[in-house]
Amino acid sequence: MSPVGAGLWRSLPAHQVYGANTNVGKTIVSTVLCNAIQRQNKRAAFLKPVSAGALDDADDRHLARYGAGTLTKCLHQFDEPVSPHLAAKQKTAPRDDDLLAAIHNTLSDWARSNIDLALVETAGGVHSPGPNGNSQADLYRPLRLPIVLVADSRLGGISASISAYESLLLRGYDVNSVLLFRDDYYQNHEYLANFFRQKSIPLVSLTAPPPKPPQEDVASHARDEEAMSTYYRQVSAESEILRLLEDMNTKNQARLTRLEEMADRAQDLIWYPFTQHQGMKPKDITVIDSAHDDYFQTFDAGQTEQQGGALRPTFDGSASWWTQGLGHGNPELALSAAYAAGRYGHVMFAGAVHEPALSLADSLLKTIGNPRFTKVFYTDNGSTGMEVAVKMGLRAACDRYGWDASQEQISILGLKGSYHGDTIGVMDCSEPSTFNKKVEWYRGRGHWFDFPLVKMVDGSWVIEIPGELQADLGTEKATFESLGSVFDLDARLATETSQKYKNYIHRTIQDLVDRHDMKFGALILEPVILGAGGMLFCDPLFQRCLTDVVREHPELFSPNASAPKSAPSWSGLPVIFDEVFTGLYRLGRPSSASFLDVHPDIAVNAKLLTGGLIPLCTTVASQEIFETFSSPEKSDALLHGHSYTAHAVGCTVAVDSLRAMSDMDANGSWDGFKADWRSHSVKAAKPASPEVWSVWSQDLLRDLSCAETVESVFGIGTVLSISLRDAEGGGYTSTAAKGLQQKLAAGGDQFNVHSRVLGNVLYLMSSVTSKPESLQEMERLLRSSLV
Amino acid sequence: MSPVGAGLWRSLPAHQVYGANTNVGKTIVSTVLCNAIQRQNKRAAFLKPVSAGALDDADDRHLARYGAGTLTKCLHQFDEPVSPHLAAKQKTAPRDDDLLAAIHNTLSDWARSNIDLALVETAGGVHSPGPNGNSQADLYRPLRLPIVLVADSRLGGISASISAYESLLLRGYDVNSVLLFRDDYYQNHEYLANFFRQKSIPLVSLTAPPPKPPQEDVASHARDEEAMSTYYRQVSAESEILRLLEDMNTKNQARLTRLEEMADRAQDLIWYPFTQHQGMKPKDITVIDSAHDDYFQTFDAGQTEQQGGALRPTFDGSASWWTQGLGHGNPELALSAAYAAGRYGHVMFAGAVHEPALSLADSLLKTIGNPRFTKVFYTDNGSTGMEVAVKMGLRAACDRYGWDASQEQISILGLKGSYHGDTIGVMDCSEPSTFNKKVEWYRGRGHWFDFPLVKMVDGSWVIEIPGELQADLGTEKATFESLGSVFDLDARLATETSQKYKNYIHRTIQDLVDRHDMKFGALILEPVILGAGGMLFCDPLFQRCLTDVVREHPELFSPNASAPKSAPSWSGLPVIFDEVFTGLYRLGRPSSASFLDVHPDIAVNAKLLTGGLIPLCTTVASQEIFETFSSPEKSDALLHGHSYTAHAVGCTVAVDSLRAMSDMDANGSWDGFKADWRSHSVKAAKPASPEVWSVWSQDLLRDLSCAETVESVFGIGTVLSISLRDAEGGGYTSTAAKGLQQKLAAGGDQFNVHSRVLGNVLYLMSSVTSKPESLQEMERLLRSSLV
Repeated sequence: MSPVGAGLWRSLPAHQVYGANTNVGKTIVSTVLCNAIQRQNKRAAFLKPVSAGALDDADDRHLARYGAGTLTKCLHQFDEPVSPHLAAKQKTAPRDDDLLAAIHNTLSDWARSNIDLALVETAGGVHSPGPNGNSQADLYRPLRLPIVLVADSRLGGISASISAYESLLLRGYDVNSVLLFRDDYYQNHEYLANFFRQKSIPLVSLTAPPPKPPQEDVASHARDEEAMSTYYRQVSAESEILRLLEDMNTKNQARLTRLEEMADRAQDLIWYPFTQHQGMKPKDITVIDSAHDDYFQTFDAGQTEQQGGALRPTFDGSASWWTQGLGHGNPELALSAAYAAGRYGHVMFAGAVHEPALSLADSLLKTIGNPRFTKVFYTDNGSTGMEVAVKMGLRAACDRYGWDASQEQISILGLKGSYHGDTIGVMDCSEPSTFNKKVEWYRGRGHWFDFPLVKMVDGSWVIEIPGELQADLGTEKATFESLGSVFDLDARLATETSQKYKNYIHRTIQDLVDRHDMKFGALILEPVILGAGGMLFCDPLFQRCLTDVVREHPELFSPNASAPKSAPSWSGLPVIFDEVFTGLYRLGRPSSASFLDVHPDIAVNAKLLTGGLIPLCTTVASQEIFETFSSPEKSDALLHGHSYTAHAVGCTVAVDSLRAMSDMDANGSWDGFKADWRSHSVKAAKPASPEVWSVWSQDLLRDLSCAETVESVFGIGTVLSISLRDAEGGGYTSTAAKGLQQKLAAGGDQFNVHSRVLGNVLYLMSSVTSKPESLQEMERLLRSSLV
Repeated sequence: MSPVGAGLWRSLPAHQVYGANTNVGKTIVSTVLCNAIQRQNKRAAFLKPVSAGALDDADDRHLARYGAGTLTKCLHQFDEPVSPHLAAKQKTAPRDDDLLAAIHNTLSDWARSNIDLALVETAGGVHSPGPNGNSQADLYRPLRLPIVLVADSRLGGISASISAYESLLLRGYDVNSVLLFRDDYYQNHEYLANFFRQKSIPLVSLTAPPPKPPQEDVASHARDEEAMSTYYRQVSAESEILRLLEDMNTKNQARLTRLEEMADRAQDLIWYPFTQHQGMKPKDITVIDSAHDDYFQTFDAGQTEQQGGALRPTFDGSASWWTQGLGHGNPELALSAAYAAGRYGHVMFAGAVHEPALSLADSLLKTIGNPRFTKVFYTDNGSTGMEVAVKMGLRAACDRYGWDASQEQISILGLKGSYHGDTIGVMDCSEPSTFNKKVEWYRGRGHWFDFPLVKMVDGSWVIEIPGELQADLGTEKATFESLGSVFDLDARLATETSQKYKNYIHRTIQDLVDRHDMKFGALILEPVILGAGGMLFCDPLFQRCLTDVVREHPELFSPNASAPKSAPSWSGLPVIFDEVFTGLYRLGRPSSASFLDVHPDIAVNAKLLTGGLIPLCTTVASQEIFETFSSPEKSDALLHGHSYTAHAVGCTVAVDSLRAMSDMDANGSWDGFKADWRSHSVKAAKPASPEVWSVWSQDLLRDLSCAETVESVFGIGTVLSISLRDAEGGGYTSTAAKGLQQKLAAGGDQFNVHSRVLGNVLYLMSSVTSKPESLQEMERLLRSSLV
C-alpha cells in the first residue's frame, strides 16, 4: 500500500464536493462554480472519481456540456444508476489506494497546468458506499480535501444536511462552504444559513434550476438545454457565488500561510517536553496538518508543487511516543469518544459509578488475566499511575513490617535504566541519570541492579553480561537459536545461569539490608524492555529470578517477615510491574508479565489503553494490597485522585480499544507475522506458548544486525530497536543514531519516516493495525539506509 | 426550569422513533410494532409530541386507525406539513421544558397502566427542528429514550441512515434497533444489516407497504384502507418483528438489571479516589446513567414507578470535582472532540506542532492576559502541571542564587491549607496534613503561613485573624460593607493592616532564612481560595502583601540577590499561581490573579480548561523562567513530558471552551448575576472594576450566614461555601456537614443534589452555563434545609 499525501496545492484550491443526500444537486452546484470561474477567464477542472449513472447523464458529461469550457475527467464509469458498491459487482472495481493515487496525481497535474479551481465530486451522500463498499467519507479521508457541502433544500433536508456535516466532522474534514437551492416553502436555506453562521462557515443559497421537461421528445430536450444554459449564465454571475469562490481561494492561501508560520509560532509559544530549546530552529519542528492510520501529513515549505503537493505522508515511527495502537483518525474511536462526551461529558467519580468506568475495570482485569488482581484505580497517565502504585506498595510493606516511614527512609528495588515517569515521586524510583539528576527535588531512593541484555548481534540472539556484572556472573556471552528459546523460562530456570542469577541477587539484597541498613518497600520492574532508559531488553530470566528471590526470601527484608497468611498474597515485597509501555499488545501480548510467567501484585497500564487517542491510566492491585488501606480512619485511605479520574470519554474509548485489539488477536490478524517468526525458529522442539513474534521480519533483524554501523538489534511485538555503534559509548546524550534518523526523515519514494532516538538507539514502533505493505516499505527503507 | 428525569420504566419499554430522513416510514414502522404487540394480547401506546401534518394524515390518527387498538396521543398539533419550527410560527409553540415534562408524565402514566410498549415518534429526520427551532435530537436529549431508528430504503438511504445514526450517537443516545423497508433494487437493507451487525444493533427489514392509490376517489380510498390493513396484519405477524419486540423488552430489563447491580460491581472492582472503603456500602455509591447540562441522571433502586420512573435528575453540586463549565453532554464539545479525534487522533508533540496545540497556546495567553507569560507547557492534569511549575521555579532560583540543590534542601513558601495535587512532588509543597502525612515518601519542604480569612458571618463580610496570628496582627475582626470592598486593594494597600501584614511576613521570612538556615526556591499560591484545603477564602490583601514582600525584598533570600537585569523579571522568588481550581471563570474572571492585581511568573490551569470534558493542563511561564533551562546541554532542559502531551482532542476542546466562555463573558451572559451583586453594594462609592460577583445571590448568602447551624458562608463566581458549626473544631475529618449533605441528597420536588463536603464545609459549584431557574431552585432547597 502506498500512502497518499493529503491534498493541498498552492496554485490550486482543490475541494471535494459532498452531498447531504443523493439528488441534492451536487453536479449543478459544481457546474455553477465552474461556470463562474470560467467566465472570469480562469480555468476550472472537474473530477468525478467514480460515476455510477447511465453514461449519458454522467456528471462529468453534464459539466462538459454546461461547464463553459471546464476541464472534466472521470476515473471510473459504471453503467447502472445505483450505488458504486453495487455497480462494482458488475465491473471490476478500482482498488481504494489506486483511486486515491489517481485522484492525487490528477490534481497534482492540474496544479501544474494553470487550473484555478478543482472540484472532486463524490457520488450520492457522504456515507454512500464507494466501489469497495466502504463509506466514501472514509474512503477519501486520506486526501482530506476541504469540502464543499451541497445541502438539501427539500423537506427533511435540514436534518440530512446537519447530519452529513457531523459525519464529515467526525472524520476530521474541514467543511469550507455550504451551498443549496432556495426553496421558499421549506426555507431550509434560512435555517441552515443561521446554523452554519454559528460555525463560521459561509452558506450560499442558489436559485433552483429550471424543472426537468416532462416529456422526452427532441423539442423538450432542446428547450431544457437552453433553459439550463440560461440558468448557469445567470446564477454563475451572482455576486454571492463570486464571493464564495474568492473565499475558497483565500482559505487555501490562508491554510498554506498558516502552515508556513506554524513552526515559527510554535518556537515562540511552546515550551516543548524533553527538549533543549537552545539551538532549536523552526525547521526542526515537524508541522503536522493531520494524520491518518500510520501516517502524519507533514508540511514541508521546501517541497514544491512539482513534487505533488504541499503535504507528505510521514510514517509515525515512534507510534507517537508509544501510544498509537489503532491508527490515527480512527473513525470508530472518534465516534466512541463523541458518544461518551454526548452521554456524560465528564462525571464525578469519587463515590459514583458510570458504565464506561465499570466496564473498563471488568474488561481490563479479563485482558490482563492475573488472578491476583481484583481492584482498579484510575488516573490520567503512566506517571500518576506509577505514583499510585508506589504509594500502594510502600504502604503494604510498611504496614506488614511495622516501619514508620516518616522516620526512616524506605527504598525500592529496581533495575538500572528504569524509567517510570516525570513526576518527582516516581523519578525517585530510578537511579540518578540524565533524566532526573538536575531536578532540584530528585532524591533517588532505591537500589538498581545491572542486568544481562538480550540482543541480536551479527545474526544471532545473544545474552550479554555487562562489565559491572562479569565478576559475579562470568563473562560468557550466551547464544540462543531463537528469541523464543530466550523466553523458554521453564527450561532456563533449571540451568546454572539461573542459579548464578539468584545467588547474585540474594547476596546483593542481603548486603544492602545488613550492611547498609536499607529498608525496601517494593520491587518495581518494567517487564522485558526498559523503554525510556534506552530500549534495554533485559534477560527475562533475570527479571524472573529477581521476582523469585524477592518472593521466596521474605526474611531478607525484615525479621518480622513471615509466610503470608493466605494465598495468593504478596511475599517479600509487593511486586509492581510498570507495563505502561510494554503492556496491552505493544509486545504482541495482552500483558508483558506473561513473558516472565509472573503475576505481579500491582500493575500499571496506560498509552495503548485508549488505542492511542487520549490520556488514561489504570493501576490494578490485588485484594491484599487494597485491604492494607482499609481502616476506620479516612486518613488511612489512599487519598489520591485527579479531577478527571475515570473520565467517561477515556474509559469508553478504552473499552472499545481493548475489544478491538483482543478481537484482532482472536481473529488471527497477526498470523502472517507469527508465521514468519515460526518459520525461523529452526530447531524449536516445541513452539513457545504463547508465541514470541514481531511485526518486524526476522530477515530484517538478521540483515540489520550484520550491518557495519550497527552494534545490535532486536524486534518484539511492534517494537524494533537498532543500537548504532558509538565511539563515545552511547547513552541518552549520544548522537550516533542521528544519521540514520536523517535518512529516514528524507524517506523513500512513497513516504518518509518520523522517528525518535534514545542516544545511540533508534527505535521504530508500529501500531497494532499497521499494514504489512507499510511495514515492508519501512523495511526496504531501513535496508537501503543501513545495509 | 424543571429538569426532567431520563425515561426508564421497569414495566414499560419506552422508545423514541427517529427517522433517518423524512418520509422513511416512521409511522408505518410504529404501526407495525404496535400491531404486533396488540395482536399478542398486550397493549401498545403511541405518542406524537408534535405533529405538523394536515390533520387527517396525522400520525397518531394513522395509528388510531390501523393500530389494532393501540392507545394514541398527540400533545401538539400543527396544520401545515412543514417543519414544526415553521408551523410554530403560525401557532403558539409549547416550551421545550413543558414538552419534555408532558412526555415524561404521559409515559409515567402509561407505565402505571399496563401498557407493554410505548413509542414516542419524532417528526422528520433526527435534526429536523422542533417547535422552538432547535434540533429534535437536542430537544429530546434530556429524556435520552432508547431509539428505534427507521432507516431509509431509497437511493441515498445508506448514507442518510448512517449519518443519522452518527448524529444520535454524538448526543449520547443508544440506538437499540433499526428497521427499514426492503427494496431489492437498492438493497440498502443488506448493506445496513451488515453495518449495524458490527455495532451489535439488530436490524429488521420489512416488506414495503402497498403503494398509495393514484386517485383520490372513495373507492380507491377504501381499497387503500383494505390493502393497509392486510399489510399490517401480515407484517406484524412476521417472526423477525416479534423477535425484535422481545429484544426491545429484554434490553429494557437488562438495562435496569445492570443499573441495579452497578453499585455492587463497583464495590467489587473499583478502588475509589479519596475514599475509605471500610464501611462503604454499595448504597453509598451514586449510579449515574448519563448526564445533561447541570444534571446527572441517577438510578435509585428504591424509587418506584409511582414516582415517575427509575431515573432522577440530580444537580451536579460539586461541578464534578470543580471541572464542569459548559454542561454535561454538550453536543458542541462532543463534536469538537470527535473532529480532533478524526483529524489527528493523538499525534506526537515533542519536536512537532499541530493546530490545536498552537491555537490553544495562543488563546490561553490572551485569555490570561499576563504580559509576563510567553511560553506554554502542556501536561495532563493539575498535579503534573504543578510538578512542572515547581521544577521551573526551583531551577530559576537555584540558578540565580547559585545553590546546588543536590546538596542542600530548597524549600517553598506557601500558605497553610494549600493543596496542589496528589503526586508526591507537589504533596511536598504543602504542610503535613491528613492528605499527605501518611504517604510514605511525603516530606513537606517549605514554610506555610497562617492567614486571615474572608467570610460572611451573620450577614456581614468580615476578615478574621486566626488565633495563630493574633499575637502578630491583633485580634480585631474587620467588617466590610461588601465583598467588592474586600477586593479594593488600591485602597487597602494604604492602610495600617497592609503594613502589619508586610511587617509580619518580612519578619517571618527573615527569621526562617537567618535563624533556621532555610533556602526558598518559589512562592506558591492558590489565588483567593484554597480549595481542597477546605474552601479557605484568604484575605486577598494578605496574598498581595506576601507577593509584594517577596518581590520587593530579594535580599531576604540570598546575599547574591540583586535587582533583576531587565523588566519584567522575577524578583526575590519566582511566583507560582496554582489556578487549577480558581482560574478560567470559576470565580467569574478569566484569571484569578486579577483579583490580586499580581502578575505571577508561572501559572497552572486545568479543570475548566476543557469546559469540563477531559483532562488537560497547561503550565505557562515567563520568558525569563524559560531561558533558565537554555543551555548547550540537553540535560539542562526541562526533561518532562507525558505520552499524550498536548493531545489534539484536549487542545481542540479547550480552544472551543475558552472561546465559548469568553463569548459568554463578552455577551453579558452573567449580567443578571452581576446586577444582583451591584444592587447590594449599598454604599460602594465606585464599583470595583472588574466586578466581584457570584451566581449565588447576596440574599441567599445573608440568610444562610444568619442560620443557627452555620458558622459562615461565602460566594464568589460559581462557588458557594457553607461552613457548618462543629463542636469538634472542623477539619477534613469532621462530619458536621453530613446532615446538610443528606438533606440536599433527598432533594426537593424537582431534583435532588449531589454534593461533596470538605470536613465541616459544604460547598456548591455551578457550571458557567447554569440557568438562573436551576440556581433559584437550589437556593430554595438550601433555605429549606438550613434557615
